[in-house]
Amino acid sequence: MAGNTFGQLFKITTFGESHGRAIGVVIDGCPAGLAVNEEYIHKELERRKPGQSAISTQRKEDDFPVILSGVFEGKSTGAPICIVIENKDQRSQDYANLKDVYRPSHADFTYQEKFGLRDYRGGGRASARETAARVAAGAVAKQFLEHYNIKITAFVSQVGTHRLYKSYKELDFEKIEDNPVRCPDAEMAEKMQAAIEEARKDGDSLGGVVTCIIQGVPTGLGEPVFDKLHAVLGHAILSINAVKGFETGSGFDAAAMRGSEHNDVFVTEEDKTRTLTNHSGGIQGGISNGEDIVFKTAFKPPATIAKAQQTINNKGNKTTVEGKGRHDPCVVPRAVPIIEAMAALVIADFVLLARGNRIGA
Amino acid sequence: MAGNTFGQLFKITTFGESHGRAIGVVIDGCPAGLAVNEEYIHKELERRKPGQSAISTQRKEDDFPVILSGVFEGKSTGAPICIVIENKDQRSQDYANLKDVYRPSHADFTYQEKFGLRDYRGGGRASARETAARVAAGAVAKQFLEHYNIKITAFVSQVGTHRLYKSYKELDFEKIEDNPVRCPDAEMAEKMQAAIEEARKDGDSLGGVVTCIIQGVPTGLGEPVFDKLHAVLGHAILSINAVKGFETGSGFDAAAMRGSEHNDVFVTEEDKTRTLTNHSGGIQGGISNGEDIVFKTAFKPPATIAKAQQTINNKGNKTTVEGKGRHDPCVVPRAVPIIEAMAALVIADFVLLARGNRIGA
Amino acid sequence: MAGNTFGQLFKITTFGESHGRAIGVVIDGCPAGLAVNEEYIHKELERRKPGQSAISTQRKEDDFPVILSGVFEGKSTGAPICIVIENKDQRSQDYANLKDVYRPSHADFTYQEKFGLRDYRGGGRASARETAARVAAGAVAKQFLEHYNIKITAFVSQVGTHRLYKSYKELDFEKIEDNPVRCPDAEMAEKMQAAIEEARKDGDSLGGVVTCIIQGVPTGLGEPVFDKLHAVLGHAILSINAVKGFETGSGFDAAAMRGSEHNDVFVTEEDKTRTLTNHSGGIQGGISNGEDIVFKTAFKPPATIAKAQQTINNKGNKTTVEGKGRHDPCVVPRAVPIIEAMAALVIADFVLLARGNRIGA
Amino acid sequence: MAGNTFGQLFKITTFGESHGRAIGVVIDGCPAGLAVNEEYIHKELERRKPGQSAISTQRKEDDFPVILSGVFEGKSTGAPICIVIENKDQRSQDYANLKDVYRPSHADFTYQEKFGLRDYRGGGRASARETAARVAAGAVAKQFLEHYNIKITAFVSQVGTHRLYKSYKELDFEKIEDNPVRCPDAEMAEKMQAAIEEARKDGDSLGGVVTCIIQGVPTGLGEPVFDKLHAVLGHAILSINAVKGFETGSGFDAAAMRGSEHNDVFVTEEDKTRTLTNHSGGIQGGISNGEDIVFKTAFKPPATIAKAQQTINNKGNKTTVEGKGRHDPCVVPRAVPIIEAMAALVIADFVLLARGNRIGA
Repeated sequence: MAGNTFGQLFKITTFGESHGRAIGVVIDGCPAGLAVNEEYIHKELERRKPGQSAISTQRKEDDFPVILSGVFEGKSTGAPICIVIENKDQRSQDYANLKDVYRPSHADFTYQEKFGLRDYRGGGRASARETAARVAAGAVAKQFLEHYNIKITAFVSQVGTHRLYKSYKELDFEKIEDNPVRCPDAEMAEKMQAAIEEARKDGDSLGGVVTCIIQGVPTGLGEPVFDKLHAVLGHAILSINAVKGFETGSGFDAAAMRGSEHNDVFVTEEDKTRTLTNHSGGIQGGISNGEDIVFKTAFKPPATIAKAQQTINNKGNKTTVEGKGRHDPCVVPRAVPIIEAMAALVIADFVLLARGNRIGA
Repeated sequence: MAGNTFGQLFKITTFGESHGRAIGVVIDGCPAGLAVNEEYIHKELERRKPGQSAISTQRKEDDFPVILSGVFEGKSTGAPICIVIENKDQRSQDYANLKDVYRPSHADFTYQEKFGLRDYRGGGRASARETAARVAAGAVAKQFLEHYNIKITAFVSQVGTHRLYKSYKELDFEKIEDNPVRCPDAEMAEKMQAAIEEARKDGDSLGGVVTCIIQGVPTGLGEPVFDKLHAVLGHAILSINAVKGFETGSGFDAAAMRGSEHNDVFVTEEDKTRTLTNHSGGIQGGISNGEDIVFKTAFKPPATIAKAQQTINNKGNKTTVEGKGRHDPCVVPRAVPIIEAMAALVIADFVLLARGNRIGA
Repeated sequence: MAGNTFGQLFKITTFGESHGRAIGVVIDGCPAGLAVNEEYIHKELERRKPGQSAISTQRKEDDFPVILSGVFEGKSTGAPICIVIENKDQRSQDYANLKDVYRPSHADFTYQEKFGLRDYRGGGRASARETAARVAAGAVAKQFLEHYNIKITAFVSQVGTHRLYKSYKELDFEKIEDNPVRCPDAEMAEKMQAAIEEARKDGDSLGGVVTCIIQGVPTGLGEPVFDKLHAVLGHAILSINAVKGFETGSGFDAAAMRGSEHNDVFVTEEDKTRTLTNHSGGIQGGISNGEDIVFKTAFKPPATIAKAQQTINNKGNKTTVEGKGRHDPCVVPRAVPIIEAMAALVIADFVLLARGNRIGA
Repeated sequence: MAGNTFGQLFKITTFGESHGRAIGVVIDGCPAGLAVNEEYIHKELERRKPGQSAISTQRKEDDFPVILSGVFEGKSTGAPICIVIENKDQRSQDYANLKDVYRPSHADFTYQEKFGLRDYRGGGRASARETAARVAAGAVAKQFLEHYNIKITAFVSQVGTHRLYKSYKELDFEKIEDNPVRCPDAEMAEKMQAAIEEARKDGDSLGGVVTCIIQGVPTGLGEPVFDKLHAVLGHAILSINAVKGFETGSGFDAAAMRGSEHNDVFVTEEDKTRTLTNHSGGIQGGISNGEDIVFKTAFKPPATIAKAQQTINNKGNKTTVEGKGRHDPCVVPRAVPIIEAMAALVIADFVLLARGNRIGA
């Protein structure tokens, strides 16, 4: 397996399986002198962890981050920062029955095909638990971005068929954490919550959409051609479990538009070059133009459901499977901090890459 | 600038500006012994080039690929393959008037901000001409994939508001090249063509969507976690000029679905493990499962339009700009071979990476 | 700080400071299905650790490797393998006096200049303790190479002015571990040992040379141009603390030779292409030719000595420093497993890279 | 084949075979705004090219660099800079006789083994002609380093058994180009020249050593652990054709030294931290300390000699081979600009990497 490293200069490598001893991340390339607040990392992990409310899974994961290296007297030293999170609630017996079964729309079959064996306990490396390592690393990246006044905010804009059509400018980001679905519109949040409860009762699950806004991004981030800012963002976001789609700015709606309505007119405002509209989503030619970066991410409904489903085992024989234990009927609320983390890691990397833009820098 | 290299083992580096001497690509990592057909590369470039029909730009670019290295007696030697395409129709005088102007939704402003200077001739490095180098490299990747019976087919499934709702399984791929919009449904193709003509008459432009199907992919391609097959595909595709969105399998529609309807049930068919539906789009846990890989790409309408538009120049003063010369009112038909090329490069890379899956391989 | 990752396909990332909580390594890219013997890793760490004999440092480091991930039921799963080694004997008080002092020929000054701060405890990230993580990873690589019957053997060929001129073919590798200097020639080993004892008594230290032989390497490993087999080996080896020189085959002696004596004549032996001599050191044009790979590494004398030395502190004022505690007067014997580990990692990486040599593979 | 790319931020990719259409290089990551002097690149290529004097090969290669991209109105734009050099004097007929023969100590056999086929014309990709692309790229890097007042100077310090023992501080670098061997000591240069002439008359060849000094390097370049400054330098230098050894500072001599004599004492000079001696070769803990960087490179005698040599062909049958045409009896003088080029590329890369050292940068 390759592909456990992401980033070029602010670079992370994650490791760990759902029911192994621990999961963790090594951050290589964090500049020296950053005040690293362990408590902040813990808080971000709390936002991601299951069991936060009635609508998410009831498992209690005590995700306490331990910084093994790279921080001395509270500051990053320039050395790689390794953060480890122990796996406490292992319950591997819950999964023994899945040893030979290929759960529908899970990674059981593809891992077996690729590697010839697999750690079947709780999905092993394919488990969403892996994203805790991303959130821990993202929390460090967010602290780095604070020095640049770059702020990343994600919220739930769709759950099942309930979709929030308001622009993010009409919303109060302070209200995102006010409800368990992480939708800043209280009325819509209630509908979403009800839909999730209903799905849970039906032993079913629901998909959704997360919107993310990055504010305060300076002009000049992103690399032309293959590493356009939104292309690398897309890579990062699409690598999150259960993601099926990614769009920036006008997104898929752009397909139905005409150039004359889509083009963002340049104007001068307070000596700054701005655009009147932001269909570009803050990125033009792959490079940030100083406007807010806006992107949306579509999540499929979780594959694990309580309902019995038909499938086959590794001998090719028919069998049925049903989700035991406690599983999220909708992962989208918990995906909010994961989206933010990946966005933070990408922006941090591009901030460092941009230091090489010019000869005089 | 970084980011002109893509891929890990089947790796490309592109170079060249729209109105410089030449554009080109270096392919490093193509295995030795591949019969490289120069004529095939040329044909693929012909599919991409402007001026193919009344509905695309009338510029004539004679894109003839010259292989400078890496091929000996018709076969790849294992050495880097450099393919160069001369820029013939330069007409830099067409662009002198744009030297100081920031065209709306172009990369003029962001390049200037990032680099402190820019090659303003025809968009320089930000021009879509850069994609010719990708198509040349993709043509080599496609020849490599023929050895594995992997076939990549893209077609236009939406232009403006005209959207083809049929499944790709109802379509005859042989008909894609029958019309200039590259939509295999003749009736829909006519509507799309009419819409493009209308936009042209209005001095305007149109967006659209390209659907791509990859057939014959073996199980086991893609790397878990950050380099999931669809994440790297997304990176590749989102890096193409004018792309605003990317989705695989059920895509954004998944958000509104329930797990019980979205999950792909495993069955055994002729001793092979298959799925009854393919909402996963051929990829589960980031790894190919042997089903067709399906993805869609949204393109915004081209920023260059004949209509006069308000903007500012590099001194911050208001001015207007209008597209002179010949420009595509809709790039989507020409995007078809570009999408295929990027998909081929990604799959070729993963085919090589998969050689490291197991100890015994 | 970057540069904590090494390798392309069999890739390691190390972390940890001398007196932090732990040091460790993440191996990404180890093929699935490898039987990973934890005990073997421990044994290799034992070979590296200080306090093995009277001639090396008396500190007792209980280097017990804990595998956090990537191994399930005794086999590599394809997921990243994280191995952590706790730091037990921390004694940071030993180092408080060095907080403001730049020890001669240590990394204190350069770390301070680069990062603006430093973890001064025992050298922090610059400590040779970091090499324990390399040895742990190398032990996994060695187990991988066993599948290919590739064997890596290093031994001490020079300590101070005592140099072994015999060819490695005259030596019995079984005798390397018979003495604490790890020189397979008993007579020379005694002289070396005496020299080290003498240096210790003088409160001084000694340099030396390690010779390494890699047997059983198939033809075709190594990548032409920048990643020639010996160039990447050189990179790996020169990155080990205290290394000042690296040579392959004839090495620096080649400078004084004529082509007619240096060229290795090809012959056919038992249907195999062999060379009569091996000045090439098993590598021609950067690619293995099937002969033994031979290289030598020069180590400087350790910078820490018991004798008082003049230096300055971080305010630029004169002071003196003397090595307290227990330090190796000669690191070369302990460098033997480190050299082997780095060589194993390089060869493992090239074995995987070579899977991409040809179209038919 | 992989491995045709070198560097992380100031990154080059080379391509081309000895007798193909052209060789060239793509530089990706050169900051925008650098004045790129084409004439300077040409001059550096002139220093490398054969046929400069009676003692080197008499082939005339008209190495004229053509910049295809990345430079606009004399300045780097941030886009990749592609430089191509046409192959004019191809004479492939000279090489047809070598089609099936494995020349001793050449790469014929290993390329054939690795790739299953080879471009036998003049060594193909394994030819030293490939280094012209490095020199062209290095010339751009040197122009970049001028902004930092970093100066790289190499000279010949040994040819065959004639070795210059003087310190570089006793030499006048202005005299390096005064004689065809590029040794700044006139007396020694004469001896070296005579030795080369003698080898030529004997139909034989000679090895040698190049010393390189990098002056003006700021503190803080180089990355701890795997990408130590001298480790990456070693990688770069060992990748040059015919190199057998690399050492920095005290090099192999360090093995015979004691710590008390090897350690470089820190002192304060004019408010700067300096060292009294420089056995460290300007690098401590892998990071530059502000002193001159000093390294030496050993070259083997060229494998091609006029004398008849025994070898085998690709069927395993005995045959003889003798160098026809015009070949260098000693490549060391021409290696001087190649060494400088690779050193410049490494330092340029580390200058950019160092921009990420600290949070405040």
